[in-house]
Amino acid sequence: MVGHGFMGAAHSQGWRVAPRFFDLPARPEMAVLVGRNPDTAAAAAEKWGWAETSTDWRSAVTRDDIDVVDIVTPGHSHAEIAIAALDAGKHVLCEKPLANTAEEAEQMAAAAARAAANGIFAMVGFTYRRVPAATFARDLVAAGTIGEIRQVRAAYLQDWLVDPTVPLAWRLQKDLAGSGALGDIGAHAIDLAEFITGQRLTSVSGVMETFVTERPLLASSSGLSGTASAERGAVTVDDVALFTGRFDGGALGSFEASRMSTGRKNALRIEVAGSLGAVSFDLEDLNALGYYDRAAPADRQGFTRVQVTEPEHPYISAWWPAGHLLGYEHGFTHQARDFVEAIMAGSQPKPSFADGLHVQQVLAAVERSAATGSAWTPTLENA
Amino acid sequence: MVGHGFMGAAHSQGWRVAPRFFDLPARPEMAVLVGRNPDTAAAAAEKWGWAETSTDWRSAVTRDDIDVVDIVTPGHSHAEIAIAALDAGKHVLCEKPLANTAEEAEQMAAAAARAAANGIFAMVGFTYRRVPAATFARDLVAAGTIGEIRQVRAAYLQDWLVDPTVPLAWRLQKDLAGSGALGDIGAHAIDLAEFITGQRLTSVSGVMETFVTERPLLASSSGLSGTASAERGAVTVDDVALFTGRFDGGALGSFEASRMSTGRKNALRIEVAGSLGAVSFDLEDLNALGYYDRAAPADRQGFTRVQVTEPEHPYISAWWPAGHLLGYEHGFTHQARDFVEAIMAGSQPKPSFADGLHVQQVLAAVERSAATGSAWTPTLENA
Amino acid sequence: MVGHGFMGAAHSQGWRVAPRFFDLPARPEMAVLVGRNPDTAAAAAEKWGWAETSTDWRSAVTRDDIDVVDIVTPGHSHAEIAIAALDAGKHVLCEKPLANTAEEAEQMAAAAARAAANGIFAMVGFTYRRVPAATFARDLVAAGTIGEIRQVRAAYLQDWLVDPTVPLAWRLQKDLAGSGALGDIGAHAIDLAEFITGQRLTSVSGVMETFVTERPLLASSSGLSGTASAERGAVTVDDVALFTGRFDGGALGSFEASRMSTGRKNALRIEVAGSLGAVSFDLEDLNALGYYDRAAPADRQGFTRVQVTEPEHPYISAWWPAGHLLGYEHGFTHQARDFVEAIMAGSQPKPSFADGLHVQQVLAAVERSAATGSAWTPTLENA
Amino acid sequence: MVGHGFMGAAHSQGWRVAPRFFDLPARPEMAVLVGRNPDTAAAAAEKWGWAETSTDWRSAVTRDDIDVVDIVTPGHSHAEIAIAALDAGKHVLCEKPLANTAEEAEQMAAAAARAAANGIFAMVGFTYRRVPAATFARDLVAAGTIGEIRQVRAAYLQDWLVDPTVPLAWRLQKDLAGSGALGDIGAHAIDLAEFITGQRLTSVSGVMETFVTERPLLASSSGLSGTASAERGAVTVDDVALFTGRFDGGALGSFEASRMSTGRKNALRIEVAGSLGAVSFDLEDLNALGYYDRAAPADRQGFTRVQVTEPEHPYISAWWPAGHLLGYEHGFTHQARDFVEAIMAGSQPKPSFADGLHVQQVLAAVERSAATGSAWTPTLENA
Repeated sequence: MVGHGFMGAAHSQGWRVAPRFFDLPARPEMAVLVGRNPDTAAAAAEKWGWAETSTDWRSAVTRDDIDVVDIVTPGHSHAEIAIAALDAGKHVLCEKPLANTAEEAEQMAAAAARAAANGIFAMVGFTYRRVPAATFARDLVAAGTIGEIRQVRAAYLQDWLVDPTVPLAWRLQKDLAGSGALGDIGAHAIDLAEFITGQRLTSVSGVMETFVTERPLLASSSGLSGTASAERGAVTVDDVALFTGRFDGGALGSFEASRMSTGRKNALRIEVAGSLGAVSFDLEDLNALGYYDRAAPADRQGFTRVQVTEPEHPYISAWWPAGHLLGYEHGFTHQARDFVEAIMAGSQPKPSFADGLHVQQVLAAVERSAATGSAWTPTLENA
Repeated sequence: MVGHGFMGAAHSQGWRVAPRFFDLPARPEMAVLVGRNPDTAAAAAEKWGWAETSTDWRSAVTRDDIDVVDIVTPGHSHAEIAIAALDAGKHVLCEKPLANTAEEAEQMAAAAARAAANGIFAMVGFTYRRVPAATFARDLVAAGTIGEIRQVRAAYLQDWLVDPTVPLAWRLQKDLAGSGALGDIGAHAIDLAEFITGQRLTSVSGVMETFVTERPLLASSSGLSGTASAERGAVTVDDVALFTGRFDGGALGSFEASRMSTGRKNALRIEVAGSLGAVSFDLEDLNALGYYDRAAPADRQGFTRVQVTEPEHPYISAWWPAGHLLGYEHGFTHQARDFVEAIMAGSQPKPSFADGLHVQQVLAAVERSAATGSAWTPTLENA
Repeated sequence: MVGHGFMGAAHSQGWRVAPRFFDLPARPEMAVLVGRNPDTAAAAAEKWGWAETSTDWRSAVTRDDIDVVDIVTPGHSHAEIAIAALDAGKHVLCEKPLANTAEEAEQMAAAAARAAANGIFAMVGFTYRRVPAATFARDLVAAGTIGEIRQVRAAYLQDWLVDPTVPLAWRLQKDLAGSGALGDIGAHAIDLAEFITGQRLTSVSGVMETFVTERPLLASSSGLSGTASAERGAVTVDDVALFTGRFDGGALGSFEASRMSTGRKNALRIEVAGSLGAVSFDLEDLNALGYYDRAAPADRQGFTRVQVTEPEHPYISAWWPAGHLLGYEHGFTHQARDFVEAIMAGSQPKPSFADGLHVQQVLAAVERSAATGSAWTPTLENA
Repeated sequence: MVGHGFMGAAHSQGWRVAPRFFDLPARPEMAVLVGRNPDTAAAAAEKWGWAETSTDWRSAVTRDDIDVVDIVTPGHSHAEIAIAALDAGKHVLCEKPLANTAEEAEQMAAAAARAAANGIFAMVGFTYRRVPAATFARDLVAAGTIGEIRQVRAAYLQDWLVDPTVPLAWRLQKDLAGSGALGDIGAHAIDLAEFITGQRLTSVSGVMETFVTERPLLASSSGLSGTASAERGAVTVDDVALFTGRFDGGALGSFEASRMSTGRKNALRIEVAGSLGAVSFDLEDLNALGYYDRAAPADRQGFTRVQVTEPEHPYISAWWPAGHLLGYEHGFTHQARDFVEAIMAGSQPKPSFADGLHVQQVLAAVERSAATGSAWTPTLENA
């Protein structure tokens, strides 16, 4: 595993726990943790249970005894590491967004395509797909339960930037993070909308906004929680991105990504309305799915709050009895399970780098649209 | 109409509005308002649209041009007025609880039985039955939709007595009010539970408690909102009553009536669990009914939040398009409608004084049980 | 009152009930109901309590004994009637949207300005402002409680057009209705957003969509619920409108108006996020306001569900004790109260025709933007 | 660890994960898993990561290289194992309920008292205390935030016995399980109520009921999910227990434990009402706490939905950023953390066996009360 921020903890938990609840065709061994600083890397490895550490990702990702490379670094370094790993014949799991630019993402998708020809696979880490309620929403849609899809309303709402004293961490700098709310959390909304609907965004019209344009510099560059210094710097990414989009299946979507939605902490919400019904999901209430069935008797229609904690639901039979809730990191365990199963079966795990590239292209199209007065912009530049 | 407190406003609104939305077989005329104080009665009559006022209820309820007597005075005066009106051949609508004691209630029920033999009918005002969602719950249960009923959980929660400065109004004095939370709001919970289940409580085990035992006296006796004086007096009724009960159909119920449930303003809640499903209602969310269907596919079960605002729902087609909410006083309009329809059809409107007597007997049984260490007590003294 | 559809019932209820709960400086008399068909007008007048009927609006609105003209006809007839009434020296209450085109609305606003110079006033009927929770949201914002406003998320969601058998009523025809979801319900979202924030939309970028493009013709033209014929016609208005907008105070808004949001019946939702807090409202839960306070202790922050049913809340002290809910039509009673109070005080009731014109200009800007690839469009054509 | 049912998986996860997120003073080693059947024990050990297995609990719990014994067997075997382990100088963590009878529990508490004199400690596993929102509720109450406590409403609602085909597993047999809903889930409600309030139940009045009195026998005895046979046997425990109780601090409580609450899967709910505020919790929504503050401005009072996922909240800073949810088994991780910390500090971990004994005495008092017509029964037999 390369990197050891907050995502490192989550991925480590996924690798550790997956074999304890699921019958995996191979047991993951947590071999090497890579970090730039040997001391902090060693501390992380000790805490999370990695056998060794390294400060040299290039040599680590080509070691003979390594089969899988898990990349949890900031987005600007994804491409170089992933391509090197794939070219070295390692399966790759890469955190989202795939890259900071569509160009890098294209190179990564190309490397993944080359590797796949040799049975080496790459996957991008949109774990929210693997929240059981989200997977179940996809299943309902795929089964035609809600009919022809007309509307998608997706939003990822946070509020940690409402506080003007939050310092200028890497996530607020365009050269490191690519974009702000759009790429960080909007990417999740896009992936989840496409996953649940089974449709792809073909064009978008968007607007982006930065409300707090200057913030205190970080005294050190270590993560979100570093100490603020007295100096200030310019925020170069968006606080909020709003866009509408058209899907290839005819649906119309509205999207919002905000780190300025006061009072909303981690609300990834999606509602999909179809000709026969609707589904509604909120990550702040992740064990439930709202389901509306137009075929129910007229006097009994309404959104049913399905607790997605029954053995009939995706992933659940491996866990607890009915009614016992799962949490945020269970998605990482499910991701580890699905990744290992696909790799051992010699099949492409989903979402692929091509899927990740597509999300990147949507992000890029939103940025171009926002830069050109919200003009409708195809998600493929040459489309 | 005899009396003109808060209930007088609600009843007046019912009589006024019912013919504007429902096609009634006869149009109510708001003839005489009776009150002890001529000035306040005149002010109320002017405001609420009554043609005349009187300070003499005895002569008012026997006037030839009066067909219906509506009683909204405190409970201790219900019996005398209602019996006089019935004996004078007037149809009677009497606010709940029917009386302050089971003895008075028995006399009233007897008078109602005598009158009914002559086509003169009496009804008691448990209006929450006529909230569309509550009526719909009853319909679902009556149709067997939730199967054999096992459990009933009913609570009426308010918090206006948490504040120790609330003065000692008539509702806190046993000689005027009969009991406290038990008779005032517990009576609603009992009636609603029996209405929805179609079963009657046969025995109860209860406990009652007064947490704030002294309160400032009222400088004047005018309602809940009067000015407090410096003197204090003893609270002689319960703040909270808890009881369990057995129904004649085999169900087991838990009941709570509280004016000390901090943060709950007017939460009359009931959930009925059966072998095939469940229904759940809360007066603080009165346009919705929770409905659970065990026959739904295993992965789609959950409580459906039915907005009881569709034309297929009870009472709704007379009002607004789907999705437009009703409020508290609509129940009084429905009550006026149902009362007029039954009277004009020459049939007994429900709930009858016999039903009201039964509720009174349950209240009395809870008081006896509470006085004897929560011993199980039949709701009929000679049962 | 000119017109007698669903809005006629609501307005009648407002005039009838307002003086029974509020102390008005003048008592409204429900004099003349105007309709094209004498029989249906007479039936409506009898049901709703109007003294007379007329089929000639021109003579009715100029009668000497008429002081106020209330217009509840479809939007295409608003301008002619309102201008005639204002020119005849009658105060006017006109249902929203003010008109079907910005041009008509401009003429109406001009007529209102002329009349106001003579102490004759006009108001447009955006009643949702007068839902107590919405008014209270405005009060909190105006007091600075949530600080500088950054984001507004407003949506009005219905689903009655999901059913493809719903016939082609006047609301689905551009020549009669002006626009579809945008003008009918989007107008409410715009007004409510501007009312609560105290800011005005200066430019918009939008998209509109019609998912069901053909529907059965109505056998008769009487309202939404008429009988469908075998023939079909083209739907000429939008099922869904999405737009983003910028406010003059710096806020960014996202708006949605949909009659295709499966499972949502009458969900006018708005959330306003500011630097110090947020407010959140949903018309399907209209007695509550969500309020988030960033100044609360860090471990106790969260959205507080305020039941806006306390005497301290707007309009409530006239109604019931704390915790007793209001319904849809109470807004019309509040509107009647506010209108009468302003007229008798000789002051301009709000929202004025100028406010209504502004909403119309926003609607027109959204249509122009949608017609030009979602280009950002000023809400004033010459801005 | 002795036993390896559903609780074994949860405890194993706790031991495994605790050192990965918390800085523990000692790292737990998962040494020996004890089970009656060597094959199933070995499979469980392999899956959950225990180094060895044994079929002889007596020798296992006295091994020199064992410091801690974790007991997750059915309740009837707790006493023998725990006493042996404590007498052998091993720290003990024992699943709830402490035992099947108050007599056994007394012996266990005595053994724990003897051991504690030698620095050896015992704890009982009421993990729901360690759900952060529950711990936070306790903190608020302990700080006096909600004032003097008046009412406690606690319920643990499940519905898995509504289905009459659920077979007669050990949990439905009095000789193995002690009691039914009362001991299994009612025990949690009692512990949580006492934990949050800091008060102890001194007397109770209860009723118990079995609605489905016969069920198919299990073909094999392995857990809840075994195969049903054609034969049927008598259910000898309660499906539902209802009781009221008085606390030593003056509060009055109502309690319900039900496996027949149709539609409720795992709803451990508690609301505590005090003179200054209230807290409300539901295990089906375990990341949130409802908090009502009577000191808030009158127009802003209401239950605040606090997402207990901020770094200021108990246990949270070890986990994810704000707004990321925890699940059911996190309580077991917190339990492992708290247990290890207390043991290493040489202090008594809470809840102690004495606390567990007290819960057992409450359960016994409820059973005695139910057997004597709901007579009020002290929770100490000689009290």
